[in-house]
Amino acid sequence: MDEISTPGRVAEPGAGITLHELQLAARNHGLPLEAMRYDLTPPGLHYLLIHYDIPYLPADAWRLRVDGLVDRPLELDLAALRTMPTHTVRVTMECAGNGRARLEPRPVSQPWLVEAIGTAEWTGVPLRHVLAAAGVDASAVELVFTGADHGVERGVEQDYQRSLTVADASEPDVLLAYAMNGAPLTPQHGAPVRLVTPGWYGMAQVKWLVRIEAVATPFEGFQQATAYRFRQQPDEPGEPVTRMAPRALLVPPGFPDFMSRVRVVRPGPVPLEGRAWSGRSPVTAVEVSADGGGTWFPADLDPPNMHRWAWRRWRAAWTATPGTHVLTARALTADGEEQPTAQAWNRGGFANNAAQHVEVHCLT
Amino acid sequence: MDEISTPGRVAEPGAGITLHELQLAARNHGLPLEAMRYDLTPPGLHYLLIHYDIPYLPADAWRLRVDGLVDRPLELDLAALRTMPTHTVRVTMECAGNGRARLEPRPVSQPWLVEAIGTAEWTGVPLRHVLAAAGVDASAVELVFTGADHGVERGVEQDYQRSLTVADASEPDVLLAYAMNGAPLTPQHGAPVRLVTPGWYGMAQVKWLVRIEAVATPFEGFQQATAYRFRQQPDEPGEPVTRMAPRALLVPPGFPDFMSRVRVVRPGPVPLEGRAWSGRSPVTAVEVSADGGGTWFPADLDPPNMHRWAWRRWRAAWTATPGTHVLTARALTADGEEQPTAQAWNRGGFANNAAQHVEVHCLT
Repeated sequence: MDEISTPGRVAEPGAGITLHELQLAARNHGLPLEAMRYDLTPPGLHYLLIHYDIPYLPADAWRLRVDGLVDRPLELDLAALRTMPTHTVRVTMECAGNGRARLEPRPVSQPWLVEAIGTAEWTGVPLRHVLAAAGVDASAVELVFTGADHGVERGVEQDYQRSLTVADASEPDVLLAYAMNGAPLTPQHGAPVRLVTPGWYGMAQVKWLVRIEAVATPFEGFQQATAYRFRQQPDEPGEPVTRMAPRALLVPPGFPDFMSRVRVVRPGPVPLEGRAWSGRSPVTAVEVSADGGGTWFPADLDPPNMHRWAWRRWRAAWTATPGTHVLTARALTADGEEQPTAQAWNRGGFANNAAQHVEVHCLT
Repeated sequence: MDEISTPGRVAEPGAGITLHELQLAARNHGLPLEAMRYDLTPPGLHYLLIHYDIPYLPADAWRLRVDGLVDRPLELDLAALRTMPTHTVRVTMECAGNGRARLEPRPVSQPWLVEAIGTAEWTGVPLRHVLAAAGVDASAVELVFTGADHGVERGVEQDYQRSLTVADASEPDVLLAYAMNGAPLTPQHGAPVRLVTPGWYGMAQVKWLVRIEAVATPFEGFQQATAYRFRQQPDEPGEPVTRMAPRALLVPPGFPDFMSRVRVVRPGPVPLEGRAWSGRSPVTAVEVSADGGGTWFPADLDPPNMHRWAWRRWRAAWTATPGTHVLTARALTADGEEQPTAQAWNRGGFANNAAQHVEVHCLT
């Protein structure tokens, strides 16, 4: 297996994107940023990161096993799940690797720039109801979630698996979701049932969920203890990747050049808008710069609403003058966390929320 | 404009994928090949190539102008279009640039490997009914189709525009489509109305359609006369890119390594399957090779059906033995056209239907 499945690596400085990275970029996809105009991301535009293949899991054959340290092991089919109480949550979701391809040096994996995001309304059964039905034993410390997707990663053959502490899994907005924006899940978003953990990066939101096991010791599987850790050196244990760092993104104004994606505007007022979110403390302010971060001015942030886990829209006025400009925006949270303008590098390329740069060329 | 919008170019031999190509790959996306298992591509998995931005074109504000050399210029809204006769056609659609990133040297543009495909059922009004209502003058030779998408390409600011001859536009399956798989078009697929020209590469199927103009001379706009031509040298006029070349693709068997996408199988029988299509003469046979094209054996092609413009499924039996194998498949048509195993290079990177290679590692 070692000849086809190699250790993680970091690209040489200046090296172009490899065929392996391109293969991932051609399968997975980000949100075209102009689609941030929609509160809910239209079907098909939400970002997608699929580690292995989309498994074939027909709804009528699907079963969810709940076992391990529980009083009453369960095997639920979709009809049984649908008889339980339902809840709908609007969630902005982001890949933990968003921003990876902007890091220098570049960790070699799915090469996201800034577009690995999307917002959807997920409907399903709050996980705590299922846990209560099974009766999680007091000796359990974590729940391990297993997906039906199967592959190899850095030499390890595996089903995709992640864990949450019993406390995190019992949060009222954590769902076993069977609908997305009012429609049954599509195959690529985890049909028929996936885990949704609002505020967390995407790796925690296990798709094609087939098993939940209550365990007595922290889970040490590949996606928990090997991948998705913040590391400077390959051999250190690293801290786990968990909740989304604050981020603001601009809808690129004007119109693009096909190849460079540089934006073109005409002189005069150019309304700016975008979205901001955080999986930690809520975003309370957004600032914008039209000179690449030299000077900042405040944006108007839409008022807080009932959607705690969804992005908020912001707007700002800008007057374009002939020449080239670099627009950027940054989010600030209630806890005082400020989105950085410089990268915080790590070997996996996780949680790089360095502020976006949008190059704009204003015609004369 | 020239500083941000440069001429077409070809990458130096061995050069990695550039940031500009990656930006396109992160926005646009192909079909994950395992999704060829579905006759109709699930929502969100159909390939997408968007030259500029997805325009904002609400259905209630949309109008289609039909003018130029016509007896009765029309301005249709969606309600008016929906009162006309409807027709549904199942269409396999492919980007003209599919296969571009496998060419050596590599033309620099959207870097597709082999996945820029999808199959959908499009519903709308046959264009010939609209042309009859407008009364196309006998002096008209072509119809020019204008989309609402606007951008710059190689220094030329433009709305996206393509033409068809009056004869091609009058084919009974050419549609002004307002539904895809029974649902209204999504923004990224051309909402509210797009042109669908079965058998042609995607560039002809103008999205966000707002105008049809009948003209007396062949259209010489950018997307017709500059882009989408087969050229060996930048200054030659070149032949136009039109209908899809024959192609067969395999569903990669087994399971993948995350990073290399090399497939892993266990020894023994491994059923192979895939799809084949052509926009020219119909596919009549598919051949498969398990040794990279050294020897070929026939696949079982599903019988012809009513869907002339959609892919057909094929199946083949293969017994895996330990070691590395390269699987490939090729389509043959009623006209005797055989899908090549070597590339036919051109500067734009169009219509590269050289047979796919799937590397498979069989465990012991």
